[in-house]
Amino acid sequence: MKKLKLGIIGAGRIGKVHTATLVQSVPSAVVVALADINPDSANELANTFGIPAVFKNYMDVINHPEVEAIVICSPTDTHAKYIIDAAKAGKHIFCEKPVDLSLEVIKGALKAVAAAGVKLMVGFNRRFDPNFMKIKQLVVEGKIGDPHILKITSRDPAPPPAEYSAVSGGMFMDMTIHDFDMARYIAGSEVTEVYTKASVLVDPAIGKAGDVDTAIITLTFANGAIGVIDNSRKAVYGYDQRVEIFGSKGMVCADNNYPENHRYFSGDGVHRSLPLNFFMDRYLDAYANEMKIFCNAVINNLKLPVDGNDGLMSVAIALAAKKSHLEHRPVILSEII
Amino acid sequence: MKKLKLGIIGAGRIGKVHTATLVQSVPSAVVVALADINPDSANELANTFGIPAVFKNYMDVINHPEVEAIVICSPTDTHAKYIIDAAKAGKHIFCEKPVDLSLEVIKGALKAVAAAGVKLMVGFNRRFDPNFMKIKQLVVEGKIGDPHILKITSRDPAPPPAEYSAVSGGMFMDMTIHDFDMARYIAGSEVTEVYTKASVLVDPAIGKAGDVDTAIITLTFANGAIGVIDNSRKAVYGYDQRVEIFGSKGMVCADNNYPENHRYFSGDGVHRSLPLNFFMDRYLDAYANEMKIFCNAVINNLKLPVDGNDGLMSVAIALAAKKSHLEHRPVILSEII
Amino acid sequence: MKKLKLGIIGAGRIGKVHTATLVQSVPSAVVVALADINPDSANELANTFGIPAVFKNYMDVINHPEVEAIVICSPTDTHAKYIIDAAKAGKHIFCEKPVDLSLEVIKGALKAVAAAGVKLMVGFNRRFDPNFMKIKQLVVEGKIGDPHILKITSRDPAPPPAEYSAVSGGMFMDMTIHDFDMARYIAGSEVTEVYTKASVLVDPAIGKAGDVDTAIITLTFANGAIGVIDNSRKAVYGYDQRVEIFGSKGMVCADNNYPENHRYFSGDGVHRSLPLNFFMDRYLDAYANEMKIFCNAVINNLKLPVDGNDGLMSVAIALAAKKSHLEHRPVILSEII
Amino acid sequence: MKKLKLGIIGAGRIGKVHTATLVQSVPSAVVVALADINPDSANELANTFGIPAVFKNYMDVINHPEVEAIVICSPTDTHAKYIIDAAKAGKHIFCEKPVDLSLEVIKGALKAVAAAGVKLMVGFNRRFDPNFMKIKQLVVEGKIGDPHILKITSRDPAPPPAEYSAVSGGMFMDMTIHDFDMARYIAGSEVTEVYTKASVLVDPAIGKAGDVDTAIITLTFANGAIGVIDNSRKAVYGYDQRVEIFGSKGMVCADNNYPENHRYFSGDGVHRSLPLNFFMDRYLDAYANEMKIFCNAVINNLKLPVDGNDGLMSVAIALAAKKSHLEHRPVILSEII
Repeated sequence: MKKLKLGIIGAGRIGKVHTATLVQSVPSAVVVALADINPDSANELANTFGIPAVFKNYMDVINHPEVEAIVICSPTDTHAKYIIDAAKAGKHIFCEKPVDLSLEVIKGALKAVAAAGVKLMVGFNRRFDPNFMKIKQLVVEGKIGDPHILKITSRDPAPPPAEYSAVSGGMFMDMTIHDFDMARYIAGSEVTEVYTKASVLVDPAIGKAGDVDTAIITLTFANGAIGVIDNSRKAVYGYDQRVEIFGSKGMVCADNNYPENHRYFSGDGVHRSLPLNFFMDRYLDAYANEMKIFCNAVINNLKLPVDGNDGLMSVAIALAAKKSHLEHRPVILSEII
Repeated sequence: MKKLKLGIIGAGRIGKVHTATLVQSVPSAVVVALADINPDSANELANTFGIPAVFKNYMDVINHPEVEAIVICSPTDTHAKYIIDAAKAGKHIFCEKPVDLSLEVIKGALKAVAAAGVKLMVGFNRRFDPNFMKIKQLVVEGKIGDPHILKITSRDPAPPPAEYSAVSGGMFMDMTIHDFDMARYIAGSEVTEVYTKASVLVDPAIGKAGDVDTAIITLTFANGAIGVIDNSRKAVYGYDQRVEIFGSKGMVCADNNYPENHRYFSGDGVHRSLPLNFFMDRYLDAYANEMKIFCNAVINNLKLPVDGNDGLMSVAIALAAKKSHLEHRPVILSEII
Repeated sequence: MKKLKLGIIGAGRIGKVHTATLVQSVPSAVVVALADINPDSANELANTFGIPAVFKNYMDVINHPEVEAIVICSPTDTHAKYIIDAAKAGKHIFCEKPVDLSLEVIKGALKAVAAAGVKLMVGFNRRFDPNFMKIKQLVVEGKIGDPHILKITSRDPAPPPAEYSAVSGGMFMDMTIHDFDMARYIAGSEVTEVYTKASVLVDPAIGKAGDVDTAIITLTFANGAIGVIDNSRKAVYGYDQRVEIFGSKGMVCADNNYPENHRYFSGDGVHRSLPLNFFMDRYLDAYANEMKIFCNAVINNLKLPVDGNDGLMSVAIALAAKKSHLEHRPVILSEII
Repeated sequence: MKKLKLGIIGAGRIGKVHTATLVQSVPSAVVVALADINPDSANELANTFGIPAVFKNYMDVINHPEVEAIVICSPTDTHAKYIIDAAKAGKHIFCEKPVDLSLEVIKGALKAVAAAGVKLMVGFNRRFDPNFMKIKQLVVEGKIGDPHILKITSRDPAPPPAEYSAVSGGMFMDMTIHDFDMARYIAGSEVTEVYTKASVLVDPAIGKAGDVDTAIITLTFANGAIGVIDNSRKAVYGYDQRVEIFGSKGMVCADNNYPENHRYFSGDGVHRSLPLNFFMDRYLDAYANEMKIFCNAVINNLKLPVDGNDGLMSVAIALAAKKSHLEHRPVILSEII
């Protein structure tokens, strides 16, 4: 079997996720190098998974002679730079979302990718969740006819620290961005207009930091469909991720996943367990599928299912959503991009 | 058992529903008189249910000496007039929704009701559906904490004739009005702002008639909660009526009802029947509960659960929704009422 | 519309059920007479539903000149006698289950029915439950292919008084008899052998009275299928009535019914209401369907869906089940009948 | 982290499963040696998972100086011999079920294990399925009170070749044996009596080979509970594995697992995917949990959750089930063991 040799940049939470996935669940992958500015993190992760080369400087991974593809798991503000450097070195790239908070910066990175002729995939892992893949499949097969209404519920178990908002770009950029990508993916069409109704209902500290924690976002698609996303930073019952699409010939929907499916009937009701609460448990298969597809596409020179333009558009919608919230009016995407 | 003697005005579809319900399912009700401008309709309905007095002129029902309460099932443009006449005659009133398409006309009718000191209940039957009553109960008990996000899905199996739109006031006024009432009921708070994204996706003839057939409507409530209604005039799988409310302590949701609950496992999947397709089947219990509560409240001089103000507010929100659609911007309720 | 004039014998619990059903839910029925040895019970029921003629002696109902059909709701030990008397009077008969505890007595009653050429239907109401009707329909349509395994779960919310066992014939005769009929109905085949494993796990007083309260009963059918019934006299979560049939081409199953379908997600799990707990609520539609079918069949001289032979066979299986329990071995039906 | 060094005997279907699980999903395991009488199978599996030592003779694995524990995945008739040899060599043992078809042979193997003081775990992987673990937990916590009725449905997607029956010991020994173990595990009590109703409904060739393909098996437990297992060798809708236990305080049940949870609503019904069809998919987590628990118990000298006695008892019940079938009567376990 032909194998892809990968280098990982960033040994934080998502770096650990991707490393574990590549080592344990992707037979066609070999992780040959790893870098993190924190040497302890890098060494620990490398030891756990037997990665031979460990560096402090990300360029050592990019320039590592065996490395064919780079997986960028570092903070958002480094993504574009690392993409450009990797592209210049002729390495293929997998980059976590968002590519950057600035459309100009993203465009610059995409230009470098195009110039180098390397492949770039952006980490919208939820596209590879078996539930949402099945919805997509039925839509593509025409089972729902023309899409009319798309609904996405996306709620986190608990908010990040309020100060995180400043760094992350806020809820639309760090959380809803997944839903914006999902919306484009499922509807099979570009978003043309956004209207945001958002509020601070979970924690006033989030509001003080200039962010929101609860939102209903209405989307208009180029194909005529309309859609709505509802978000909360805090669902006490856990991680809530559901999608429904309704069209001229039917509807298909997907529910959450559960750790097991027992039902307990006692004298005071019927009880079952809460949905999977942690994104890694819920999207375990999605992370594995994502990396398998990336490695396979690079090895066999296939088209990637999520590319740089997808990374660009999701950020553009997030910016439109924020503008709509701030200006209290519907915002047309062409105002943004 | 003390019984309430009722007179019914209107022997059309909803008149038949209420007559059958009162006669068959409300032990405390006696229907003593019935009127319809079409004598054939009136006689047929009276014969079926053994109603002793039948008239062509609605005033004969209102003035019938035995009649204590009037059930108005005639076309919308007669509601306000009949309310006023019944109130002047000292009769209690149950009136189908909407009370009228004009807020001024509604206010006039409510003034007459108040002056006469009679009771007026407006026919928002869905409040009495066992699923939605259970949701309301849990919200009132504080089980979800502070409400954050309310979601209502409301889709009809098939659109009415396009020409109906002109008479009915359009989708927001004849269909979504139920959802506006449900939103106020479940959220336990007034709507303060509306944003409508609507389109014609089902049938171009509806658009030509000046109406829409598909919509996503964002609501802001006085208590800080936000909500969204999604509507379609045509769900090929039938009548789709679901509610979900999410808050600081939990979420409660209600699904559709089904004619039976069989599951068939064959070689190509698991199959079950479609939800109840006809509003009379889905809301059978709701219609019975509604009339029982109305009769009981009149007999025992209790507060009604849906009053004239509820009739007024639902129309106001419908007007705001239409204005938002036409002006492509969020509309504050105080612009309307 | 042609109507059937009925006389009811017995104003106890099931008498009330059938009277209410006939008066409120069966347009083709008119209840013209009622008898109960307890005049107070008879009068109260007659008053509630406006039944014109009330008697103490059941023969006055049978001989009432207007009465075309008799509904027998009296204690089991009177059923056969009343059937014979009604048959001799040329009246059609609906009789509650079981027809009698003795096969000889039942055969005598069926002979009288045959001689008189009247119709006899036995009250196996569950056949008319929409869930089980749907299962039956799919089986008849061949959707599951050849039946292989039939499973019936039937558990009551609470046991009857222990002394009731002596009168009723015990659990197999008063409770499981419904399941034996359901088994024959769904499998579409006669039972040829029974093996019973039964015990006293709910209440020792039931055992002292010579009865059991928990059982697993294995059935063999003439068509080769095998089946199992599990019974308990006490399910703390309420009335539990489920059916599943598995065959060469698939499986179909039916679950319990619920008062409403809300789901509540809190921090400690997902909760829903218990199934409908009372047989009248669960089988509300079944009782109405049963009486509609009986009245319609009598009026239009149609074949009845549950006849005297069904009454006979269910008792025979109950006797076999008891014999199997007592003798601790499989019992062939031909040992019994 | 302390790691356990394992040697695997048998590179067939279940050998591949355990090897993959140990290498990919059990961080505390290292597979150091592998043997199969077919060198091609052994080499292929060793290459895939990077196992350093490969042998034709199983004794080379047992005697391998690094190997601390043996995983026996060879045909049933070799199990006891390999257990004895491994025990004599002082190696801990994981052995696939059944240990043997003869109780005497099993007892001999258990004696050798006891004499050597090594650990032996038998491969009843289903105990480690998250659904069934949850049921067990609720039973142990007393949530259902005293167990009254246990129900297990266990149906395979397709029968093995008819000739397999002779080797495997037949359906009760190769398939139902899992359910017998599950019954003892969930009920928390020994089986004291078995009654089997079995038939050949799937394929006459199975009958010609002296086996059955469809069965309902009634169990009596020492704690007073009763239970029933229903089996089929061929469910056209796939692998069907459900458990339900009912007691004095409630009921808990577990359903099948599904590849994803989409629901598609079209004009002719609601559709979902079939349950996971392949035992490896359904019991993926169970296999991983099983091996983690085995390795952890050996490393830390803990009691094993499934021991030699469990292997013995499941075979004894299978023999009783067969005897009951052949003699057409309930069989007491003390007749067998």
